[in-house]
Amino acid sequence: MRMITLDEVAALLRENDDFKLLTHSYPDGDTLGGAFALAFALRKLGKRANVAVNGPVPSKFRYLVKNYKEQDFTPKYIVSVDVAAMSLLGDSVMEGVKGIDLCIDHHRTNTVVADNIYVDGDAAAACETVYQLVELLGVELDEDIAGGIYTGISTDTGCFCFTNTTPRTHRIAAQVIPFCDWKQINYINFVVRTRAKIKMERMIYDTMEFYAGGKCAIVYTTLAMQKALGAGDDEMEGLANIPRQVEGVEMGITMREKDGGVFKVSVRTNDGINAAEFCKKFGGGGHPAAAGCSVEGDLATVKKLLVDAAEEYI
Amino acid sequence: MRMITLDEVAALLRENDDFKLLTHSYPDGDTLGGAFALAFALRKLGKRANVAVNGPVPSKFRYLVKNYKEQDFTPKYIVSVDVAAMSLLGDSVMEGVKGIDLCIDHHRTNTVVADNIYVDGDAAAACETVYQLVELLGVELDEDIAGGIYTGISTDTGCFCFTNTTPRTHRIAAQVIPFCDWKQINYINFVVRTRAKIKMERMIYDTMEFYAGGKCAIVYTTLAMQKALGAGDDEMEGLANIPRQVEGVEMGITMREKDGGVFKVSVRTNDGINAAEFCKKFGGGGHPAAAGCSVEGDLATVKKLLVDAAEEYI
Repeated sequence: MRMITLDEVAALLRENDDFKLLTHSYPDGDTLGGAFALAFALRKLGKRANVAVNGPVPSKFRYLVKNYKEQDFTPKYIVSVDVAAMSLLGDSVMEGVKGIDLCIDHHRTNTVVADNIYVDGDAAAACETVYQLVELLGVELDEDIAGGIYTGISTDTGCFCFTNTTPRTHRIAAQVIPFCDWKQINYINFVVRTRAKIKMERMIYDTMEFYAGGKCAIVYTTLAMQKALGAGDDEMEGLANIPRQVEGVEMGITMREKDGGVFKVSVRTNDGINAAEFCKKFGGGGHPAAAGCSVEGDLATVKKLLVDAAEEYI
Repeated sequence: MRMITLDEVAALLRENDDFKLLTHSYPDGDTLGGAFALAFALRKLGKRANVAVNGPVPSKFRYLVKNYKEQDFTPKYIVSVDVAAMSLLGDSVMEGVKGIDLCIDHHRTNTVVADNIYVDGDAAAACETVYQLVELLGVELDEDIAGGIYTGISTDTGCFCFTNTTPRTHRIAAQVIPFCDWKQINYINFVVRTRAKIKMERMIYDTMEFYAGGKCAIVYTTLAMQKALGAGDDEMEGLANIPRQVEGVEMGITMREKDGGVFKVSVRTNDGINAAEFCKKFGGGGHPAAAGCSVEGDLATVKKLLVDAAEEYI
């Protein structure tokens, strides 16, 4: 395990071949956009590179793989992209993987075990690092690479709205948007919502309760609600941002019931309240303004646990 | 009336003094952000400059004027910022104004009568031009100037999401965000919503009807609805984006009842449907993807007019 520089990351990518790029479970725009952009870039250098995804690529992100075909080779160099912890690597992703050679990430809480580690905690998205690597490697941008990078930085910043955005994020956006269909990417990720999703959002408001003098808002979805609306996983995305939007709320908690008596919990906070630290109490982690954890139990029990902890924490 | 270049605009600003900067009615982030940023920049050059606003600065934009104090002088040079038509200049704004010396705008449909006209139809916001002028005039960015510019470009692009965003928009954002409290500006403009606003949004969904095989969605608010929720003008902003967000919708129409038996109509469209052209049929105008008009009549009549026109248009 050694922390390396960006130049060293570029050198390792240049020196090696037959890459397997690992993405995290419940894949989002940054892990997918970053891994596929990097794979396309490595292939442009004449190398072989595949991306391992836990399950199918979510339908909304299918545009990332329209020019992607799995290559046939035995992986020799393993790289994780946007993966913050080993537990986020699904079994199918880790198939045949003995160890990780290189970890590229932007989560300050990163605990991945790898020979070489590059974590840029100032990067809004792992895709910022991927962009820098594409530049260092001298690979010319094209639609696949630019589209992946734009997907990662736009989704991880809520379209340049979240507090993790930096001047560099905007500068990279300016570089990549001439090469990709960013209007369609924005439409998919930030504009369009299915009727089922709109219904789910409205239902969530009915569950909203306020604590800590209105500073904490908590909402939930249950499997029964999801079933009643015919809402798939796509409809369940982005709900985590709802409670923090209410005036006066500094900590928004979204509980989402998953199979097996467990709630996936997302926490979004304003400046001054550390969501990652809060989630750590429940074995989770993430960023200061956006973090998550999983808590076992029934709805009432989990809610009480979270509310009590939040009231103490705020 | 002559169309001039950006360099000529800068020269006129440099040569003249005692500026009155005009903003448009129902002032938004671009007209206010642009006019106040330009006023602060001109003052830094040792000139006198005031901004004329029709009514008070909306509460959400009060941060733009925290360091602004009206100066005492007789205006000699009149500049309109982000004003697309003379009809958008309120009486109080035009008080004592005999003619407009310079028009700075980004609406391609601009019909302002002025001695000198600069319209950059490629600019996502008039504030892009203001940024370029600040640069040309050699004025150093500060919180007031950068905050105004960021407000204009972020609000006119829906935080860099709308299709009018360009690489230049992002490059300007990268330049100004180190100087202003853009996190708070984003929070005010894109994150926080009052409980009344959330209720209003939910109520709007109940009014949603689909036409043209689901390609057109229309929603409305009435004065009665507004009163029932205690929703002020701040709560009524941004509602125009709701109908277009529904999957399959290519033209979203939002009707908002105003005093005096008139509906203010906002139209948002996907690529391929020209909102400005559609609104022109009703005496309005705007941008290809976002335009508006006013239509007199009762709810049912106005809705039927719009729906019939939309079905024919799509």
